[in-house]
Amino acid sequence: MTTAVLEEVAASRCFGGWQRRYRHSSATLRCAMVFSVYLPPQAESGRVPALYWLSGLTCSDENFMHKAGAQHLAAELGVAIVAPDTSPRGAHVPGDPEGAWDFGHGAGFYLDATQQPWAENYRMHDYVVRELPALIEAQLPIDSRRAISGHSMGGHGALVCALRNPGRYRAVSAFAPISHAIDSPWGQKAFARYLGEGRSAWKEWDACELIASAGERLPLLVDQGEADGFLLAQLQPEKLRQACAAVGHPLRLRVHPAYDHSYYFIASFIDDHLRHHAAALLAP
Amino acid sequence: MTTAVLEEVAASRCFGGWQRRYRHSSATLRCAMVFSVYLPPQAESGRVPALYWLSGLTCSDENFMHKAGAQHLAAELGVAIVAPDTSPRGAHVPGDPEGAWDFGHGAGFYLDATQQPWAENYRMHDYVVRELPALIEAQLPIDSRRAISGHSMGGHGALVCALRNPGRYRAVSAFAPISHAIDSPWGQKAFARYLGEGRSAWKEWDACELIASAGERLPLLVDQGEADGFLLAQLQPEKLRQACAAVGHPLRLRVHPAYDHSYYFIASFIDDHLRHHAAALLAP
Repeated sequence: MTTAVLEEVAASRCFGGWQRRYRHSSATLRCAMVFSVYLPPQAESGRVPALYWLSGLTCSDENFMHKAGAQHLAAELGVAIVAPDTSPRGAHVPGDPEGAWDFGHGAGFYLDATQQPWAENYRMHDYVVRELPALIEAQLPIDSRRAISGHSMGGHGALVCALRNPGRYRAVSAFAPISHAIDSPWGQKAFARYLGEGRSAWKEWDACELIASAGERLPLLVDQGEADGFLLAQLQPEKLRQACAAVGHPLRLRVHPAYDHSYYFIASFIDDHLRHHAAALLAP
Repeated sequence: MTTAVLEEVAASRCFGGWQRRYRHSSATLRCAMVFSVYLPPQAESGRVPALYWLSGLTCSDENFMHKAGAQHLAAELGVAIVAPDTSPRGAHVPGDPEGAWDFGHGAGFYLDATQQPWAENYRMHDYVVRELPALIEAQLPIDSRRAISGHSMGGHGALVCALRNPGRYRAVSAFAPISHAIDSPWGQKAFARYLGEGRSAWKEWDACELIASAGERLPLLVDQGEADGFLLAQLQPEKLRQACAAVGHPLRLRVHPAYDHSYYFIASFIDDHLRHHAAALLAP
């Protein structure tokens, strides 16, 4: 396999660094993909570590970069932020046969599908954990110090990526994650299609299930808004609390009164997450 | 005239305060209008001053609130931010007969039109300077300490609002303003339609022209990106520099290498503007 070329499709100066978008051919997903990256000023004189950010349902690589206000502190800390898209895309990539927003395009759930017709393209876990970092670390001034975070479906993705890949990330956090996907309507719909009806396969992609046998116990920082309309049915942070307590997995779960599921919530607490990640990424 | 009712259409907790949207009937614009407001935590225990933000072509009341990252420091300083829409809206409000994005809906240019069919609705100056603050100061925990800023078409709007209304604003600033609208293609297209072909009427809505006879000399803070694609043809900050120099109007014009016209540019420098406004708004 030859290394894919990163084609720059946008670049804006931002807090002394660069906000960029790249398109490339993904061998894993068998389609063209676009991702966004914020390169802090420190990347002009050396390689920097990166926080990978996984967005939620319906989002693209741009929502976080537009709305989270993360670049300010990332520039100060010297940490890059990489935001992949939320699914494979393109006319030849199958989506939701019913055209819904919670499956298919924009809803890859950061897993590797095993069922047709999705298995050909929907391998977002492999893409996010392996193909994308390899491309970036070969072609951008970013090194292999990695951390991962995300929101909602992307919060689930961040927890699962870290839990399935011991040693690959130095830190992990999440905003309003789907904590127990196999027990949520969003997760059940997606997993039944991407993974088939056998629930044993589902457990390999569920944060609460993975906690029990985790090969490393990276401390989890999780923020959740108490006024989040998806809290009880879809997100269920208490399930994560129970799963962590059962095995002594370190968890800092902060529930914030009156905050909702929006990017206004994320923006309000992103600095705490950036500092959490930077402490691990920049440790000697 | 009875006071219009503010109907809340959205509310999100944000940095300890509230990000809200309201709909109301505008007597000035003869249509329903929506605006966004960020209320800092201090507004829960007393009245706070407000920065009015005027957005650019194609924007709504939401772009700045989503993308500028201003709430963080506004919450710290105790300053509200009010973002009106960029034009009257609605099926009965005439737009651009050619359907372009630089005139009509989303392109009110913050002036009071005199020509038909626009004169009935396109009175954004009157709305921004009088009707909207009156509504807000009567119904929200915001008092009459006002400052104004904006971007591009909205930077033109902010400068013109301040220059035409001595004593009404305590501070003014702009990002990449259309400095000399009557000498820019955007301004010429809009002014010819909204104000007619007589160029003498245009001068009353042009920042460079108004500088000469300004009734108060509020210091201007203006930021401009040097890689802004609209710099030379549309924005022309050097014209503003010349107009200010000619009469000794205080201007701090900062030209930033490599920055473009996007919200990434605005986000990078919004804190400086907030501190500029807060110093005047919070002065005893």
